[in-house]
Amino acid sequence: MAFSEIEYRVADRVATITLSRPERLNAFTLTMRAELIDAFDLADADDDVRAVVVTGAGRAFCAGADLGGGGGTFGRRGEGELVDGAPRDGGGTVALRIAASLKPVIAAINGPAVGVGVTMTLPMDVRLAAESARFGFVFARRGIVPEAASSWFLPRVVGISRAMEWAVTGRVFPAAEALEGRLVSRVLPDEELLPAAYALGREIADNTSAVSVAAVRRLMWSGLSAASPWEAHAADSRLMAELGGAADTVEGVNAFLEKRRADFPMKVSEDLPPGVPSWPDNPYGV
Amino acid sequence: MAFSEIEYRVADRVATITLSRPERLNAFTLTMRAELIDAFDLADADDDVRAVVVTGAGRAFCAGADLGGGGGTFGRRGEGELVDGAPRDGGGTVALRIAASLKPVIAAINGPAVGVGVTMTLPMDVRLAAESARFGFVFARRGIVPEAASSWFLPRVVGISRAMEWAVTGRVFPAAEALEGRLVSRVLPDEELLPAAYALGREIADNTSAVSVAAVRRLMWSGLSAASPWEAHAADSRLMAELGGAADTVEGVNAFLEKRRADFPMKVSEDLPPGVPSWPDNPYGV
Amino acid sequence: MAFSEIEYRVADRVATITLSRPERLNAFTLTMRAELIDAFDLADADDDVRAVVVTGAGRAFCAGADLGGGGGTFGRRGEGELVDGAPRDGGGTVALRIAASLKPVIAAINGPAVGVGVTMTLPMDVRLAAESARFGFVFARRGIVPEAASSWFLPRVVGISRAMEWAVTGRVFPAAEALEGRLVSRVLPDEELLPAAYALGREIADNTSAVSVAAVRRLMWSGLSAASPWEAHAADSRLMAELGGAADTVEGVNAFLEKRRADFPMKVSEDLPPGVPSWPDNPYGV
Repeated sequence: MAFSEIEYRVADRVATITLSRPERLNAFTLTMRAELIDAFDLADADDDVRAVVVTGAGRAFCAGADLGGGGGTFGRRGEGELVDGAPRDGGGTVALRIAASLKPVIAAINGPAVGVGVTMTLPMDVRLAAESARFGFVFARRGIVPEAASSWFLPRVVGISRAMEWAVTGRVFPAAEALEGRLVSRVLPDEELLPAAYALGREIADNTSAVSVAAVRRLMWSGLSAASPWEAHAADSRLMAELGGAADTVEGVNAFLEKRRADFPMKVSEDLPPGVPSWPDNPYGV
Repeated sequence: MAFSEIEYRVADRVATITLSRPERLNAFTLTMRAELIDAFDLADADDDVRAVVVTGAGRAFCAGADLGGGGGTFGRRGEGELVDGAPRDGGGTVALRIAASLKPVIAAINGPAVGVGVTMTLPMDVRLAAESARFGFVFARRGIVPEAASSWFLPRVVGISRAMEWAVTGRVFPAAEALEGRLVSRVLPDEELLPAAYALGREIADNTSAVSVAAVRRLMWSGLSAASPWEAHAADSRLMAELGGAADTVEGVNAFLEKRRADFPMKVSEDLPPGVPSWPDNPYGV
Repeated sequence: MAFSEIEYRVADRVATITLSRPERLNAFTLTMRAELIDAFDLADADDDVRAVVVTGAGRAFCAGADLGGGGGTFGRRGEGELVDGAPRDGGGTVALRIAASLKPVIAAINGPAVGVGVTMTLPMDVRLAAESARFGFVFARRGIVPEAASSWFLPRVVGISRAMEWAVTGRVFPAAEALEGRLVSRVLPDEELLPAAYALGREIADNTSAVSVAAVRRLMWSGLSAASPWEAHAADSRLMAELGGAADTVEGVNAFLEKRRADFPMKVSEDLPPGVPSWPDNPYGV
């Protein structure tokens, strides 16, 4: 698949998606939106991919929506599918696709991540920041609102108070504030960012069952949105029953007992048990 | 509007609500309850108000319910509206009014904030504490339970474990523990508290669209209570469509591109788009 | 009641439950499962118990499910009750019983807490760790998924991002990382762990109404799972009405006004008001 505004490559069982419009600070466009969704489809379908790293080309991660169209930019959004009569927010289509990913997603935030540039990272599993990264939920400074379903994700990532402070001020803030507010889990010297992201990807690839990890991701999002822990209890009882005698589990336990690295035989493409929660299935059918 | 137990003033686009019964450590009464609700109504209706600072007169923020009535104090609550047959908890009527505020609310906690004195701050956007502040969810030490809907707000502000620890011990704790537990976002030397609160208010007033900020507040609470991110996606798709071509958005984007401060023309009193979520509408009609 | 894999004792108004299979690092079995549930029933029924401390005998807290059965261990689970057709996950039955406890529960994590050894602690109120403790949500390294309803509890304790990172890597991590990620509230030198746990238990016993504390626990879990703060407002309005004139409240307020320690007369076994939320009632009836 040929991409024009992102790069996609797989090496050492980790896929890298690079936002790649460096001359525009990787500003987000409808083309980039479509390519990101396609890239996550590729990663999910490829059993050789055990984790996904998302980063930006050049000095930015993503400067937000491309404002090259001037003051009318946000008024011209609206091609494509509708949700309740309104055009689907483009950032939201990407964020919700990332939430549904069967592979863990690691954001390697190498520079400014502003607007959709930061909200798209919220459904990713881990956010690592370079020291030169900076962040901004700047929507209220442009006359709009936080998108990409960030009113759902952000308070669940950083808590409601920090979410409110960042969203009502629209402030651009440095990596240290992002760390203090738990938007990112670590801040690294710039040159150590990608190595840390890949080390995390390999930690997953080297040690875990791909089927377990896919099930974990779905189970955790499902548990987060469940009204009561009894729903989670039903879901994990079912998954434990389905996976308890499966080949990966037998191998995982035996390898542990034999103090050796496990060699898990099951594949995400073929062996996901039916009890894996389907959330967040797209109710809009597109 | 004349108030007897609070003070209300507006300066430099920020309203200040001061709890003002310093001889009683600003203890909470039914009069204060009613005046606080009226003050938030004033702030919402006044387009010159871009943020609200809440603080206490004298050396306390609020010492909790006024216990001057002795052991029977809590047994005599009950004037006024009912909810499911019980008198509505007074702290809850204030907390839920604050959650519904169209203007961001900054708590400047200048001294003891105990009982309803702290639970009323939970729906505020940012809590700043003076070094001499102290906090206590002391309800279990009085034979009652945390009120002001704090069983909903507190675990969403500080996480369930810290919420449980503070509520089951009823401990009174210093500002440092409040910061460590993320109940407050910053602790400041006493004399720097109000300047920091006003700086935050001006940061909002100087840089953001009032309509955006009102929409952000409602959207974020709505997203926090939504069962799935698809609800948030529908809500922000609609708001992006309604606001995308609006005057504030055109001005916001143009100002950004022209590297100047934006001069947003829209007013909260007249221009809130219909897609702003109505939550938390009062189901009790009062 | 005689136990074989745990110890249960009550002293100074605090019950201690000790996981006690030290030769197996207190690995979890179906017997231990049943005994834990019985022990929490004992603690709830005993008005002399004001808090529960859970710890491990020997050098471990709990090494997880006993894997002595080899690779087929998880395939053989399944005796007992069903949930939606699947055998109920054993860790979940314990975790949900702990969530329903009428007494606050303090985990004193004295060594490795891995698999169900850590997920069983998530519904406890406070987790304290010894410096030699270590933690692991290792399920994806064994081919299974996090259980004990941890997909519900873990993101509500530590936030969704940290929950995802720990669950998709299956990493075993030291106490310092648990503290940084807010899985535990404090890390203590090994010899100070139990004294700190008991000090917390006594802080509760010495200062609070047992009825209030039981109501607080139920109210807080209920508020955490409530869709809107209006549900919390209804619940705490009812409880404030029921408790406002009760003997504990009169004593609590009078003691405060007289600057003396309160002597609360009410008992959990007899005096819980009807408004205490019943959540998390077991929908499976067992």
